[in-house]
Amino acid sequence: MWSRLCCWLLACAILTVAPAASAEDGYQLWLRYAPLQGAALQSAAAHAKAIMVPAQGPSAQTAQAELQRGFASLTGKTPQSTQSLTDGTIWLATPASSPTPLPVSPSTLGEEGYAIRTIRMQGKTVTLIAANHDIGLLYGAFHLLRLASSEADLDHLDITSTPRIKLRMLNHWDNLDGTVERGYAGASIWDWWHLPDFKDPRYTEYARANASIGINGTVLNNVNAKADSLTAPYIAKAAALADVFRPYGIKVYLSAKWSAPIEIGSLKTADPLDPQVAKWWAAKADEIYAAIPDFGGFLVKANSEGQPGPQDYHRTHADGANMLAAALKPHGGVVIWRAFVYAAGAQKDPRLDDRAKQAYDDFKPLDGKFADNVLVQVKNGAIDFQPREPFHPLFGAMPKTPLMMEFQITKEYIGQSTHLTYLGPLFEETLRADTGTGGTVADVVDGKLDHHRLTGIAGIANIGTDRNWSGSIFNQADWYAFGRLAWDPQLSAQQIAQEWAAQTFSPDPRVVTPVVAMMEGSREAAVDYMTPLGLAHVMGTGHHYGPAPWIANLERPEWNPVYYHRADAEGIGFDRTAKGSNAIAQYAPPVAARLSKLETTPEKEWLWFHHVGWDQKLASGETLWDGLVHHYDHGVAYVAGMQQTWETLRPLIDAERFTQTQTYLAIQHREAQWWRDASIAYFQSISHRPLPAGAAAPAHGLDWYKALRFPYAPGNPK
Amino acid sequence: MWSRLCCWLLACAILTVAPAASAEDGYQLWLRYAPLQGAALQSAAAHAKAIMVPAQGPSAQTAQAELQRGFASLTGKTPQSTQSLTDGTIWLATPASSPTPLPVSPSTLGEEGYAIRTIRMQGKTVTLIAANHDIGLLYGAFHLLRLASSEADLDHLDITSTPRIKLRMLNHWDNLDGTVERGYAGASIWDWWHLPDFKDPRYTEYARANASIGINGTVLNNVNAKADSLTAPYIAKAAALADVFRPYGIKVYLSAKWSAPIEIGSLKTADPLDPQVAKWWAAKADEIYAAIPDFGGFLVKANSEGQPGPQDYHRTHADGANMLAAALKPHGGVVIWRAFVYAAGAQKDPRLDDRAKQAYDDFKPLDGKFADNVLVQVKNGAIDFQPREPFHPLFGAMPKTPLMMEFQITKEYIGQSTHLTYLGPLFEETLRADTGTGGTVADVVDGKLDHHRLTGIAGIANIGTDRNWSGSIFNQADWYAFGRLAWDPQLSAQQIAQEWAAQTFSPDPRVVTPVVAMMEGSREAAVDYMTPLGLAHVMGTGHHYGPAPWIANLERPEWNPVYYHRADAEGIGFDRTAKGSNAIAQYAPPVAARLSKLETTPEKEWLWFHHVGWDQKLASGETLWDGLVHHYDHGVAYVAGMQQTWETLRPLIDAERFTQTQTYLAIQHREAQWWRDASIAYFQSISHRPLPAGAAAPAHGLDWYKALRFPYAPGNPK
Repeated sequence: MWSRLCCWLLACAILTVAPAASAEDGYQLWLRYAPLQGAALQSAAAHAKAIMVPAQGPSAQTAQAELQRGFASLTGKTPQSTQSLTDGTIWLATPASSPTPLPVSPSTLGEEGYAIRTIRMQGKTVTLIAANHDIGLLYGAFHLLRLASSEADLDHLDITSTPRIKLRMLNHWDNLDGTVERGYAGASIWDWWHLPDFKDPRYTEYARANASIGINGTVLNNVNAKADSLTAPYIAKAAALADVFRPYGIKVYLSAKWSAPIEIGSLKTADPLDPQVAKWWAAKADEIYAAIPDFGGFLVKANSEGQPGPQDYHRTHADGANMLAAALKPHGGVVIWRAFVYAAGAQKDPRLDDRAKQAYDDFKPLDGKFADNVLVQVKNGAIDFQPREPFHPLFGAMPKTPLMMEFQITKEYIGQSTHLTYLGPLFEETLRADTGTGGTVADVVDGKLDHHRLTGIAGIANIGTDRNWSGSIFNQADWYAFGRLAWDPQLSAQQIAQEWAAQTFSPDPRVVTPVVAMMEGSREAAVDYMTPLGLAHVMGTGHHYGPAPWIANLERPEWNPVYYHRADAEGIGFDRTAKGSNAIAQYAPPVAARLSKLETTPEKEWLWFHHVGWDQKLASGETLWDGLVHHYDHGVAYVAGMQQTWETLRPLIDAERFTQTQTYLAIQHREAQWWRDASIAYFQSISHRPLPAGAAAPAHGLDWYKALRFPYAPGNPK
Repeated sequence: MWSRLCCWLLACAILTVAPAASAEDGYQLWLRYAPLQGAALQSAAAHAKAIMVPAQGPSAQTAQAELQRGFASLTGKTPQSTQSLTDGTIWLATPASSPTPLPVSPSTLGEEGYAIRTIRMQGKTVTLIAANHDIGLLYGAFHLLRLASSEADLDHLDITSTPRIKLRMLNHWDNLDGTVERGYAGASIWDWWHLPDFKDPRYTEYARANASIGINGTVLNNVNAKADSLTAPYIAKAAALADVFRPYGIKVYLSAKWSAPIEIGSLKTADPLDPQVAKWWAAKADEIYAAIPDFGGFLVKANSEGQPGPQDYHRTHADGANMLAAALKPHGGVVIWRAFVYAAGAQKDPRLDDRAKQAYDDFKPLDGKFADNVLVQVKNGAIDFQPREPFHPLFGAMPKTPLMMEFQITKEYIGQSTHLTYLGPLFEETLRADTGTGGTVADVVDGKLDHHRLTGIAGIANIGTDRNWSGSIFNQADWYAFGRLAWDPQLSAQQIAQEWAAQTFSPDPRVVTPVVAMMEGSREAAVDYMTPLGLAHVMGTGHHYGPAPWIANLERPEWNPVYYHRADAEGIGFDRTAKGSNAIAQYAPPVAARLSKLETTPEKEWLWFHHVGWDQKLASGETLWDGLVHHYDHGVAYVAGMQQTWETLRPLIDAERFTQTQTYLAIQHREAQWWRDASIAYFQSISHRPLPAGAAAPAHGLDWYKALRFPYAPGNPK
């Protein structure tokens, strides 16, 4: 009788919930905890029979809930809470919550780290997650779930992991009106209108996802800030978010508008050396900390692209940052001051001979002048998040200042929502670059090189209200990779791709291997079809979508693509040697020496640093012109290859995610072809050279490409 | 052995899918098909053992799929497709697909109607859904599922249902940039950027939801239109949506910008009598129909609120509409021309003595002048979607012209996303109003009164990318009620609320009864706390959110709240009698005679039609001033009552929907109090009368309310 009832109920359960359960719309991100099978199921079930969590803090409770949710989904059985160690228990322990010393040395775990050990105690096999603080338990729990989801061996775990960077942050370029600057995944997930009353359940999912990859800070509002975000109603809204995020170890930060004392404080000036201004900011900090006791601090974009700043009062960036830092200091907050500055003041700024030089020129002299709770946030490259940029010359140039890395996760210039262009290799390439000062960029950022304890890394979020969060399934990988690299900049992009693919699709190697193969070359493919050989910023004006290397009529010289590629009858590329802008001199001598000569400059950076003749020979023996064309063709061909690979995965991927990705790859292929054709049509009009043998002529004439318009392209600032 | 395996699998199934299956986030709308229990389960299972669908068209196949999905979820068993009638079969039959005459007279079913009959055939009990066309089968299928979901008796069905209105449409005020004018549910669901390539699965869900309530047309873009929506790329995008919607019986329409021939056609004029203009539109219609063979037609807002129109060329609205109608006529399309006109031309238009009169003045003389494929779309009231408006005087005044009703489902003036204000009673009140010309407004709209066969009703959609579609769970009821009333304007708002609540929450009377009770009085409560006794348009400028009856400084007189309430030392209200603007004369004589005297005017419309002394006695015996205050208080108290009722439902409603509604009710209560207090603070400053005994003084002084600002209020047009 029971058996029949059970069987009927089973059928009922499967049928009734099937539609919801099978809706793979991407909302679960990499935290799908898809049911395991076979040996992996047996192993996970055996190691997650029960959970013992003596610690009572919110993060410890969250860790327990996550383990229960995760293993329930993975194994079909919810690990029960236990007060004593039985066989197969997961034991979440801190020194404070354990009656006896832990079998892990606390000194190895730091503030946020954890150890995961398979131990035998009183004849029982136990999986110990040990940490000094509850947040480490949560990070360890996510790590264990990642291992289980990926069908890793859980029998002999011996892992110790601590983050190498202290501040691991997302920067949201989200506006108070719900739009997202450079957002390609729908509207802002911050529903300011209904905050603080209504806390969308999505906020908790956001915090979970970030904690699962170690992100511990988030700047809620756009660096092009509104002063309103510092008014009492918006502080209350930010506080409500902070309450949701706190158990997940995530601190809230705000972008601060420099002119806020004037706009909402009724002062006449925002001069950082004016005592009234300093007093206003100190009071504002007090007000914020009263609502958000663990508020992280301010992110500031000043004297850049029209934003106000201390230079308006003939003060330096350091004057500005230090005044804010003093306001935050009593509360333990930090100031993150962006080094992305250009076009601040006069139209005829002599430094406009090379925009790439401006951040270095402004900030290098300030090294050592910043207060000890200030970080300077530097973009990965000196222009603006191009498909490829050489590392920013400030890295290595300001040893006395903590330099925070700023990556762009949202793909403003690299295919936006539709192109599959995995950014892991871009992040990796920058982090591993040798600064010529005794270490890599990663060594600068993680503080090792210059012995900084205050360190940070930020990624411009690619998150929006789209059900899949990031505009596409594969864009989720960029969020994931950023977080993982923020925790450990030494990880490889390939390894991260494997982790992500296993959790996001399936640990089945028939899925992981081809998916990772697609991802690995995808960014280089985008470089090839968009900006090969060191080209940059040839995208359409404003929306930065699609090719427009011909644009030459914008008001400021450095807004025009022709400024960047400098193609002429002889050749192409921006001469940044001593004969040109001499931006190369901003690098440390070993790097500068290498870049000053074409033959010791990597081909992939040639046109960034040199003006190269069309007939210059590449390593392949072909001319630059022919090579350029071939790079474009390789990029397009790579996308076609991804389409073929993806087709083979049809039987192994759920229909919804398969179809969206298939559709987006088709868009990408069409647009890669467009990039290739438009670029060749334009550059050929300058090089006056024939296409190499076998290369197809562009599908349309140059005027056809020039006439394309995208008045409603997403993400464009209003 | 099997029993244990089954039980284990059951546990597994329940545990693993529980999070997804129990996520009641509102996405399923009223189509949740929640599992039945007890007798209702037995009954539904007995009547849905199998489905026979001889018809092969897409709508018939969609009907079958919906029945399978629905009954699988309701009963735990998927009805299998069958080729022969067995006991418990649902038989979807059309005359064309049935080898023998159906036991239902086709002449009773019309183009879209259906019958549902329990019949006995060859000793078997069969549920027959009969229709002349496949779309009727789909409507019938949704009706049967509605009955089953509501635990109705399925044993003796004998239903015939045909729509009383031909065009049952949503109007989306969605912009091409993804914003929604007067949208309070997130961004536009139309992802123009990824169309036509990517067809979001949500489009299918949208079509399902609309078909389930009988909606058969949708205008995709804002009436404040961009000409771009008529360019080839956007026609292709609209065509992709039309392909998704077609099996659900939904036609696509576009708002047409009058000046499109100039903006995208390179003509010098948009004069409707210019042959080049007519030719341009005819060619544009040809182009659209080549892509969308069943395109519905154009919706036009012309010479209103700054939009261009035929009056720019000294032509009439009829001249404009008829020119477009001629372009669409060969393809079977219609023109829907909006009668909402004001502030078209000169600042000093003499008709500005009463904005309420302008539509009648412009359109009444044109009765009989419109082509036979033109409908004139008239808002329910003469101002603009207020919490209460008397019916629009054009209803009954243009017997030779099909008048299409325009309701606003999105609650621009009535609480937007957060207030629980069920609009069913508002729709019902207008539809049942006696025009004084021999019938009700419904009789005008459904064509009965004036013998029109082309009839229509439109609702401004409240749909956006919010997971719950409409900004709140209860706002879904307004979408639902609009659709049901469009199908049958004689339905009662109460009955519709019962249907909706049973499907949306539970058929359990412990849920339905209190939920319906909350809903029924909720709109009157909003009238009470916002605009009692016939007040109107006292909302804040632009965003229309919150009270601002004091606004008096806007450029045009009819933009100011003081224009509408006309409060002075003697009294309050807009005198629309012969002594005033004489707008009452626009109504048919029996109505006008009644409204011309205060004593025969319903109290609820007093201040709409009359300037009434503060000390005028109400039916209750109290003065107008005291009654006004009491109405405000009643409104606030009603919301408090809804909060109490909702609390009692906590054990019966899932946590996510319970919490959001609870939170929104708290917001509503706070804001109802704000409305009450701000309104009383202001009007008391004019009436100079004491508050009636027991009425609390406003919490703040008038200046406090005046100082409130909402710079990022949603839905505000850019």
